[in-house]
Amino acid sequence: MDKTHVKRGTMKITFIQTGGTIDKDYPRTMRGYAFEISEPAIKRILKNLNPTFEYEVLSICKKDSMDITEEDREIIYQACKEQENDKIIITHGTDTIIETAIKLSDINDKVIILTGAMKPEKFSDSDAPVNVGIAIGAINILEDGIYIAMNGRVYPWNKVKRDLETGKFIGC
Amino acid sequence: MDKTHVKRGTMKITFIQTGGTIDKDYPRTMRGYAFEISEPAIKRILKNLNPTFEYEVLSICKKDSMDITEEDREIIYQACKEQENDKIIITHGTDTIIETAIKLSDINDKVIILTGAMKPEKFSDSDAPVNVGIAIGAINILEDGIYIAMNGRVYPWNKVKRDLETGKFIGC
Amino acid sequence: MDKTHVKRGTMKITFIQTGGTIDKDYPRTMRGYAFEISEPAIKRILKNLNPTFEYEVLSICKKDSMDITEEDREIIYQACKEQENDKIIITHGTDTIIETAIKLSDINDKVIILTGAMKPEKFSDSDAPVNVGIAIGAINILEDGIYIAMNGRVYPWNKVKRDLETGKFIGC
Amino acid sequence: MDKTHVKRGTMKITFIQTGGTIDKDYPRTMRGYAFEISEPAIKRILKNLNPTFEYEVLSICKKDSMDITEEDREIIYQACKEQENDKIIITHGTDTIIETAIKLSDINDKVIILTGAMKPEKFSDSDAPVNVGIAIGAINILEDGIYIAMNGRVYPWNKVKRDLETGKFIGC
Repeated sequence: MDKTHVKRGTMKITFIQTGGTIDKDYPRTMRGYAFEISEPAIKRILKNLNPTFEYEVLSICKKDSMDITEEDREIIYQACKEQENDKIIITHGTDTIIETAIKLSDINDKVIILTGAMKPEKFSDSDAPVNVGIAIGAINILEDGIYIAMNGRVYPWNKVKRDLETGKFIGC
Repeated sequence: MDKTHVKRGTMKITFIQTGGTIDKDYPRTMRGYAFEISEPAIKRILKNLNPTFEYEVLSICKKDSMDITEEDREIIYQACKEQENDKIIITHGTDTIIETAIKLSDINDKVIILTGAMKPEKFSDSDAPVNVGIAIGAINILEDGIYIAMNGRVYPWNKVKRDLETGKFIGC
Repeated sequence: MDKTHVKRGTMKITFIQTGGTIDKDYPRTMRGYAFEISEPAIKRILKNLNPTFEYEVLSICKKDSMDITEEDREIIYQACKEQENDKIIITHGTDTIIETAIKLSDINDKVIILTGAMKPEKFSDSDAPVNVGIAIGAINILEDGIYIAMNGRVYPWNKVKRDLETGKFIGC
Repeated sequence: MDKTHVKRGTMKITFIQTGGTIDKDYPRTMRGYAFEISEPAIKRILKNLNPTFEYEVLSICKKDSMDITEEDREIIYQACKEQENDKIIITHGTDTIIETAIKLSDINDKVIILTGAMKPEKFSDSDAPVNVGIAIGAINILEDGIYIAMNGRVYPWNKVKRDLETGKFIGC
């Protein structure tokens, strides 16, 4: 076994948009009180990165994660299951990201990392680019499994919870 | 051995600034043709990230990597060698990042990842936040060794070269 | 009369924050569906500008302009009325900016320009810096009166309306 | 004479790029020590502004203003002279912006405002958007003449100098 666990050769990542804060924009409208889910922020982040790996970006839904239904989770699950590529990064709203990770937990032939952001990528002080980077860095190395990357750490799906006071993701 | 290779418990990262494009600013001066190495960009990136891990930021030098001397490299080497913490991320100019990685290659009790940027972090379309994220994501998982994280991939120090035409880092 | 209408000598501008989209931030909270009015964006814009004019920034309220009451307008009116300085720029939500301009319209010893933004200043593609610039550029020159600066034009308070379809401010 | 000096009806602005810090980018190259003049920043600023006025953007040269020759100035002069539109905003490097303003000073049938930036528009803390805004705000109102808009003030071409210590433009 390769001691460094760094994979050699080419790498392909499938990015899946489900919505969430990371993709929120502030559309030009009148009486526009709120944010709307827009194009995948991941596209702008990857453009800046100029990666050597191959990738594709799929948009499955554009929902605040509080609005993601069991039907939506089933669609996300099937999309991951049927992917030929074995490296998947899902961008997701943070409020129910753990629920979606649980839903995916029986997929055992792929590395799937879920990440999101506390501030929309369109904000100049967003955590989106660094969070997506953390998921990309981890997917270079991780063995198959379902993971959540938030607040600088990468957790297996069943070793993470949310601190109800700070909103931060912490190990458990 | 933990199949996932994800480390449990708390994590501390020591960030070391050496200079390079990532930290370039454009100071307000007259006849100001060029840039200057400024405060560590890493501080702004970590503020946005709001991490759960502990960290410290050390500034060893503020040089374009073409200007880093053997003396500078010796200082970087000693600083890494003497660190008690075993997780180090070095931000570095890309032109001689491989030379510095080679210099550090006999340190075998730590994970050290070097990264940098093709555009200053102060640019709105910089690759700095995602690159630093990739180093952070990888350091969550990697075994001891010296690595370079650039263009979306994480390479052991002796498995990477630079494509002279595109400027991209590629495996070898 | 000075043909150029450019005022000589020193200039002082009083900036008044009332809230609105320009100052919206996206706070780090759980289940945080929406935004909050934050510190005056004007401070960050003026820091970037590095102006030679004197200024002060007053915060009168931090409200979405749909929530500004007649009492709030009275307070804004009195604050403008009592200012010794005769150049005032008010940042305001766009939905009721014309109502506030009407309220101020009997103040005849000052130049008062109201402006705002369609996207929060915290967004990387915000119109806030250029809109504030337009108000500053106009206040260098304008005679006493109440004006609205939006979408690249500067209008007397009674010569502007909003296009209900596009949300743009247009002359009338 | 219209007391407010605000022009009614439609407005068209011709923007002319000559280069300078405002348009500097940091190209992805190896050994890329320096900045290069790139596409007109004005296009991105106008996209954010979403203006109601008509405009066109002409690129005459892409030079650091220290490198602008008398031939270049002649070309800029002729371009302004021949414009049918009578409202022109020129983006220019700050080091020789006054020299170019002097060159244009005998054009008396147009409003021409020169502006620039101390930090490239690509920087997240650039003064470019607010400076361009100031020029746009002023051109809404000014009578024919040649002006420089920098550091928050708008000066007739012959009433401005540069503070050699701070680099700021001041009246004289």
